[in-house]
Amino acid sequence: MFAEPETTAPAMTAVLAAVLTGGPLSRVALARRLGLSQAAITRAAQPLIKRGYLRELAATERSGPGAGRPASPLAIRPDREFFLGVKITADELIGVVCDLGARVRAAARRPLTGTDVEHVLTELGALVDELLDGPGNLRARTRRLGLAVSGDVHRPTGLVRYSPFLRWHDVALQHRAEQLTGLAVTVENDVKALTIAEHWFGDGAGAESFALVTVGTGIGCGLVVDGKLVSGAHGVAGEIGHLGVDVNGPPCHCGGRGCVEAIAGTDAIVGRARERSGRPDLTFDDAVALARSGNVRINAVFAEAGLAIGCGLAAVANLVGPARIVVSGEGLAAYDLFDEHIRTGFERQAFGAAACPLTIRPLPFEQWARGAATVSIQTFVTS
Amino acid sequence: MFAEPETTAPAMTAVLAAVLTGGPLSRVALARRLGLSQAAITRAAQPLIKRGYLRELAATERSGPGAGRPASPLAIRPDREFFLGVKITADELIGVVCDLGARVRAAARRPLTGTDVEHVLTELGALVDELLDGPGNLRARTRRLGLAVSGDVHRPTGLVRYSPFLRWHDVALQHRAEQLTGLAVTVENDVKALTIAEHWFGDGAGAESFALVTVGTGIGCGLVVDGKLVSGAHGVAGEIGHLGVDVNGPPCHCGGRGCVEAIAGTDAIVGRARERSGRPDLTFDDAVALARSGNVRINAVFAEAGLAIGCGLAAVANLVGPARIVVSGEGLAAYDLFDEHIRTGFERQAFGAAACPLTIRPLPFEQWARGAATVSIQTFVTS
Ligand SMILES: [Zn+2]
Ligand SMILES: [Zn+2]
Repeated sequence: MFAEPETTAPAMTAVLAAVLTGGPLSRVALARRLGLSQAAITRAAQPLIKRGYLRELAATERSGPGAGRPASPLAIRPDREFFLGVKITADELIGVVCDLGARVRAAARRPLTGTDVEHVLTELGALVDELLDGPGNLRARTRRLGLAVSGDVHRPTGLVRYSPFLRWHDVALQHRAEQLTGLAVTVENDVKALTIAEHWFGDGAGAESFALVTVGTGIGCGLVVDGKLVSGAHGVAGEIGHLGVDVNGPPCHCGGRGCVEAIAGTDAIVGRARERSGRPDLTFDDAVALARSGNVRINAVFAEAGLAIGCGLAAVANLVGPARIVVSGEGLAAYDLFDEHIRTGFERQAFGAAACPLTIRPLPFEQWARGAATVSIQTFVTS
Repeated sequence: MFAEPETTAPAMTAVLAAVLTGGPLSRVALARRLGLSQAAITRAAQPLIKRGYLRELAATERSGPGAGRPASPLAIRPDREFFLGVKITADELIGVVCDLGARVRAAARRPLTGTDVEHVLTELGALVDELLDGPGNLRARTRRLGLAVSGDVHRPTGLVRYSPFLRWHDVALQHRAEQLTGLAVTVENDVKALTIAEHWFGDGAGAESFALVTVGTGIGCGLVVDGKLVSGAHGVAGEIGHLGVDVNGPPCHCGGRGCVEAIAGTDAIVGRARERSGRPDLTFDDAVALARSGNVRINAVFAEAGLAIGCGLAAVANLVGPARIVVSGEGLAAYDLFDEHIRTGFERQAFGAAACPLTIRPLPFEQWARGAATVSIQTFVTS
């Protein structure tokens, strides 16, 4: 984060992360939670206070059981620094500026006419300028940008190895975006970014284990076990989209059969709706409209999709036993058509106590962009 | 483990565990591996050497790159203490005595005429006596007994909450067995016990993540992520047997449909073989014999079972990404009928790099009993 010869960097990181995600916290509570002495907490907090990232709450601001006790709770100063986050989709850039507490302070979108790297970078530069030069003098306090991209991303080097939706292979996105914007850039897979945001600041905060599942063109899953994002010994994890839930089901582009994505991905739903309606030009929105108007055949397509997703969620629950599962994503624009069937499939297939609480809720793309900003907050805190 | 005022118990535990599972190791290597100073390693090793659990290798015993260097490797003294392990099945007790290095030094079995708790305890007492009073004066150096039982086991209290195969509900097995034998008893779920054994002393040694899958009457899975056994926020994890792999498949006793166990469990195989052969009295051994003699219909039953298991393994790989998966269990007596189909299903459904190495091998019940003994070694080391 920053060199401070008189303190140890790991303790500073631990203190800042704990206050960010669970604050305000007294030094006593921090010492207990982090397994450090109070003296070590005080030493680690000192430079964070001096630099304006943390402050001691005044007695009048305290409430609850700790109020009035000599232990002064530490809180973040959310305005101390801002973090940009941009989610890159195939037809749009969605950007936000968050404060240190991951609250969205500004948002903007820019359409894309294609996914050509040069075009995307040009529009990214324009979006960053638009966000930072707006009201509030954000540029002066913004040093970092997080980018979220679907596909195989190598975060340590900021390389997009392969993004099928963008048709990108081996794009050195971090390097290019740093040259373009002058900001410190972190690149992460979009589902992982959203999972980190939920784990640090959302429904997963405080949970030792939880899962975030996103439903859309692809079906993805971020998995936190024992407080850490599972990344897989061979670089693959959370591939809920390719769980086989129907041994005689439709073939999938991955080579599998009856994959969740081959039944419940947006393209699969459109394909099946076209087949059953006999209308080869049907769009996803048409299918949604038909289902909502009570078309039995198209409703069945959504029901099968919901059931497949529910089975996939149950697989996560049965194998890993997360404290809670959050289901979200663009595909959930048709939330009302899925919801009940997802729950039916989940309850049927989750084994006993594995049937954990399930939150199903649509998330706008701005939340994905916030996920990207959260990754840059995380990079800042842990670096 | 034992009070040593001049050293810290966590460091002693860490040193003993590291030497047990990865030794011999020099103090330099231990310090690096455990993130401790060499002085701390020396302090922690001192009482372990004094009590006879560790010893310094003499120069003549060393080989390899570290040979002859001043750093003296530490090794365990396997004969210092012995550990009993017993696997309790519905019709037999299988017992072993292991040394500190988990090597089996004696083994014996006792048939059961029923699963009545009193009968099982009586036979357990007889088995323990038989093992400890045999050659080698094992009793003098044996203080601990590990028991492995299928079903829902609460290890901290040694309570068997529910074991369907034994038809046990809330049996205080640890307490009863301690009164009976005078040994310190640890009770664990049998699949978890086998997973711990593989993680400490077997194919999973050194792997940050791996999975052990057992195939038999039930189909179970122990999962290690980030070096720790996954236990699930709600007490359920590794329930590979109830993953839904065929949305239109046969109903399962769990309330699900097309579960792996409902297709590939021993009872499911017998049921399906009876249906397809028209022989309502067919046994599992009959089905195996028919399949081996080339009966197409019965072969198809095993092929479907193998495919379902393969899909379940792929789900583990896709979600968690273990470094390796080991498949084993009694059901694998019919290993030759399954093997190819398990691999086919796994390779079809594992996503890209998630297709980790797969080891498929039968394990005799003595290995499960060794798993139980390993749990008591683990309890000894970490307590
Ligand atoms: Zn697939
Ligand atoms: Zn089941």
